[in-house]
Amino acid sequence: MDINFFIWRNTPEESKNFIFKRAELDISKIEKIVNQILDEIKKRGDKALIHYIEKFDGAKLNPEQLRVKEEEFKRAEEKLSNELKEAIRKNIENVRKFHAIQMPSPMKLFPVSLGVYAGEKIEPIPSVGLYIPRGKGSFPSVLYMLAIPAIIAGVERIVIVTPPSRDGSIDAATLFTAKECTIKEIYRISGIQAIGALAYGTKTIPKVEKIIGPGSSYVTAAKRALFGIVDVGLPAGPSESLILADETANPKNVALDFLIESEHGPDSASILVTDSEDLGREVVKIVPSLIEDLPSMRKNFIKENMKKYSGVVIVEELNEAIDFVNKYAPEHLSIVTKNPFDVFPLIKNAGEILIGEYTPFSLANFSIGPNAILPTGGFAKTFSPVSVRDFFKYSSISYVTKNGFEKLKDYAIQLADYEGFPSHSTALKKRKICKKGGNDFYERKRI
Amino acid sequence: MDINFFIWRNTPEESKNFIFKRAELDISKIEKIVNQILDEIKKRGDKALIHYIEKFDGAKLNPEQLRVKEEEFKRAEEKLSNELKEAIRKNIENVRKFHAIQMPSPMKLFPVSLGVYAGEKIEPIPSVGLYIPRGKGSFPSVLYMLAIPAIIAGVERIVIVTPPSRDGSIDAATLFTAKECTIKEIYRISGIQAIGALAYGTKTIPKVEKIIGPGSSYVTAAKRALFGIVDVGLPAGPSESLILADETANPKNVALDFLIESEHGPDSASILVTDSEDLGREVVKIVPSLIEDLPSMRKNFIKENMKKYSGVVIVEELNEAIDFVNKYAPEHLSIVTKNPFDVFPLIKNAGEILIGEYTPFSLANFSIGPNAILPTGGFAKTFSPVSVRDFFKYSSISYVTKNGFEKLKDYAIQLADYEGFPSHSTALKKRKICKKGGNDFYERKRI
Repeated sequence: MDINFFIWRNTPEESKNFIFKRAELDISKIEKIVNQILDEIKKRGDKALIHYIEKFDGAKLNPEQLRVKEEEFKRAEEKLSNELKEAIRKNIENVRKFHAIQMPSPMKLFPVSLGVYAGEKIEPIPSVGLYIPRGKGSFPSVLYMLAIPAIIAGVERIVIVTPPSRDGSIDAATLFTAKECTIKEIYRISGIQAIGALAYGTKTIPKVEKIIGPGSSYVTAAKRALFGIVDVGLPAGPSESLILADETANPKNVALDFLIESEHGPDSASILVTDSEDLGREVVKIVPSLIEDLPSMRKNFIKENMKKYSGVVIVEELNEAIDFVNKYAPEHLSIVTKNPFDVFPLIKNAGEILIGEYTPFSLANFSIGPNAILPTGGFAKTFSPVSVRDFFKYSSISYVTKNGFEKLKDYAIQLADYEGFPSHSTALKKRKICKKGGNDFYERKRI
Repeated sequence: MDINFFIWRNTPEESKNFIFKRAELDISKIEKIVNQILDEIKKRGDKALIHYIEKFDGAKLNPEQLRVKEEEFKRAEEKLSNELKEAIRKNIENVRKFHAIQMPSPMKLFPVSLGVYAGEKIEPIPSVGLYIPRGKGSFPSVLYMLAIPAIIAGVERIVIVTPPSRDGSIDAATLFTAKECTIKEIYRISGIQAIGALAYGTKTIPKVEKIIGPGSSYVTAAKRALFGIVDVGLPAGPSESLILADETANPKNVALDFLIESEHGPDSASILVTDSEDLGREVVKIVPSLIEDLPSMRKNFIKENMKKYSGVVIVEELNEAIDFVNKYAPEHLSIVTKNPFDVFPLIKNAGEILIGEYTPFSLANFSIGPNAILPTGGFAKTFSPVSVRDFFKYSSISYVTKNGFEKLKDYAIQLADYEGFPSHSTALKKRKICKKGGNDFYERKRI
C-alpha cells in the first residue's frame, strides 16, 4: 500500500494543494434525483415515502408501520449484551455532563445607558429531526451525541429517523439508546425521502423546524437543497483526522490512530504532520501490517483514501505543523508532542482538539463527552461542533423608559432620515408621550 | 387603503393561514441567472465582476478601482452633518456595549471523571465579508450592526462590499461608519457578483470564509446557491414586525409603529395582534392619514404589503395573542400591554422583543444596542439574531490521562465493536501504555 509522503519544504505548491483538497460533494450529478424525490414527498406525502423506502431499502411498509412501536424497544433491549448496555449508559452520562456545562443562563438584561436596558434570553427550538445513518455500520453513538444536547436544551419534540433493514427492523442498539434518552418518536425512513418528510411533513410524520445529523451524500444534498426552507444545521461530510506529533510520540500508537478515521469510507482523510522524519517513516512502515486483518470493506476504504486524501507531511519545525493545521482546519485533531498544552492554544481551526497520547480519536468518538458530530471540509474555520447551542436560539430583549426614549431618540432619527425611512423617523418624532409623573410603566392613559 | 382585519375566533382555518404566510423567495425563476453569474465569477474573476457591475449598476470601473481608496474616506466625512456623525458614533457605542456582553470566556476545561478532562475554547473566524445593501435607501446602520460584533469577536480580516452609484461612488455615511469601525478593506461591488467574488475570490478580492448580511432576493439566492461552499450565516429576508397590544396602548403610537417595518418594501409584513377590538379599529382608522405625506415609493410599498402580508388580528384573550406570536415567530416584536414584563417571558419565538411603549422598532433598528439583522420568515424559531457568536466558533478540547484512559477505554471499545469499526477498537485495545511511574505527561519513551 502506498501512503502519500511529503517533505514539506521540498514540495512544490501544486502538490501541497493536493493534501488540502477534500472530497467535494458534486451535487450536479445527483441534484436531479434529489429534487425529484423531495418534490414527490412534498406533493404525495406518505405514498411517496412508502414507495422510496421499498425502492431503496427493500422494506415493504404501510404508513401505520413507519413509526416504531413500544414493544420493539423491549425486544431490542433483549438482544443486547449487558456490557454494551452499560457502555451506552456510561457514555451517555459523560456526554450529558459535558453538554450541561454549555448551557448559558436563560436571560441577561443590563443597562446600556440611563433608562435603556438590553439583553437576551434563550428558548429551545420547538422541534428537531435527528438523522441517524445506517449502512456501512449502525450508529447508536450518533443518536446519543445528537439527542443529549437537544434534551438538555429543552427541545419539546425530538424526532428520530433512521433507515430500516429489508425486514423493516431498526438497529437494536439504536432503539435501546433512544429509550435511554427517553425519545419515543422514531420513524424507520431513510435518505432523501426521510429528509423530505421531516422538512415538509406528511400525514404520518408532522414536520420539524430543524434537521440535523450526518448522512450519505444523498442526505447531504437533500439538506443543501432545503436550505432556506428548513434549518439544516452544520455541514458534516466525510470524516477527517489530523495527528500533530513530534519525536516523543510512540510510532505504534500513532500508526494505530492514523487508521481510526481512515476506515470510515473511501472519502475520509487521515493526515500525520510531524517535525520528525523518523516518526513519519516508522508510521508508514507499521500501517500496512495493521490493516492486514481488517475486513475487506474497511481495508478497501483505507487503501482508497490513502491514495486520494490521506498522507504524511514532514515539516522542519513545530510552528510549521501548527500553521498546517490551521490552514487544513481538520474535523478531529490529535496533538501528541512533548508539551501538548503549549501547542493546543495555538490551534485556531479544528473541530475538536485531543491532547496527549491517551486521548485517541476513538475514545473521543464515543466516550469522553464532547460531541462527535463536527464540521468537516474546512468548515471548522467558521462552524462549531454540534452542541446545546444547536438546539436553542436567542431573542434580543430591549426595554426603554420614557427618560431613556427622550435621551436616545435623536440618534435614531438622524439615521432614519439619512437612510430614507420617513415612517421610522415619524414614529419617534410624533410619538405621544404620557405627561403624568411617576414610573412611566404604570402611567398609561387608559387605566 | 384596505387593511386586513381578522376577528380571530370567527376566522376559518384557510383564512388564518393567509396571515402566517410570508413572502417566499421563489428561487426557480432566478436560479438560472444566479448560477450563471456565480459560474462566470468563478471562472473569469475580475473580468466578469467588472462586466456585471457595469451591467447592473451602470458604473464603469477597472479592477484597480474596485477597492475604496484612502482619500475617499476623508471626502465622505466632509459631506456629512455633525449631527449625523455624532448619532453614528453614539449608536456604535451602544451596539458595542451590547455585543461586548455576549462574549463568552475564551476557554473552559473541566473534569468529566477521574483523569478525563473536557471543555471548549473559542477562536474568531479567520475572515468575513459583510454585504451592505443599497438601492431603496443606503444602510450605514447595517454596517455597524455587522462590523461591531465581528470586531469584538476578533476577526482578523473584515471585508465590506457595497454597491456603487453610477459614478462609482460609495454612500458617504457608509464610508464614514466603516472608518469609525476601523475597517479599510471595502469593495464597490454589488449583488450576485459581489457574493460570488467573496466566495470564490478574484485576483483583486481574496476570498473570505463567511458571508453575512441582508440583501435583495438575488443576493439571498446567491447565498443559498453557495451553501455548502462557503458559510452564509442566517436567512435574513423581507422585514417583519408584530405588535402585541392591549387596551392600555395608545392607538396613535401603535398606528405609527405599525408603519415602521411596513415601509421597507412590498414584501414586508406588519401585524397588530390585540385583545382590544377598539384599539384595532382605531389603528385601522388612523393609519391611512399617516401615509398621506409619505414619498410615493414608500406609500406603494405599504399599500402593497397591506394587501398581501400585513393585517390586524383581534383575539379574545392575551394568551391567544401570545400563541399567535409564537406560531408566527416574527423578526421584530413589540409588546405594549399593561404588564409587558409578565408577557415577554412567555414569548418563545421572536428575533427581538421590545418591551413597552417607549421601545419602538425604529429606536431598536438604529440605537438601543441589540443587533438589527434578525432571522425572518419564521426562522426565529431556530435562528438567533446576528451576534458575536456569528464571528467566532468553538473547538472542543479533551485531555485524558493514562489512568483516565484505562478507566474509560472499555466503554468506547464496546461501541466501536458494535458499530463495526475494528480500527477504532484496536487503537484502544493494542495501545502501548508507558509503564514508568509518575505523571504520564512527562514519562515519554524517547526523552
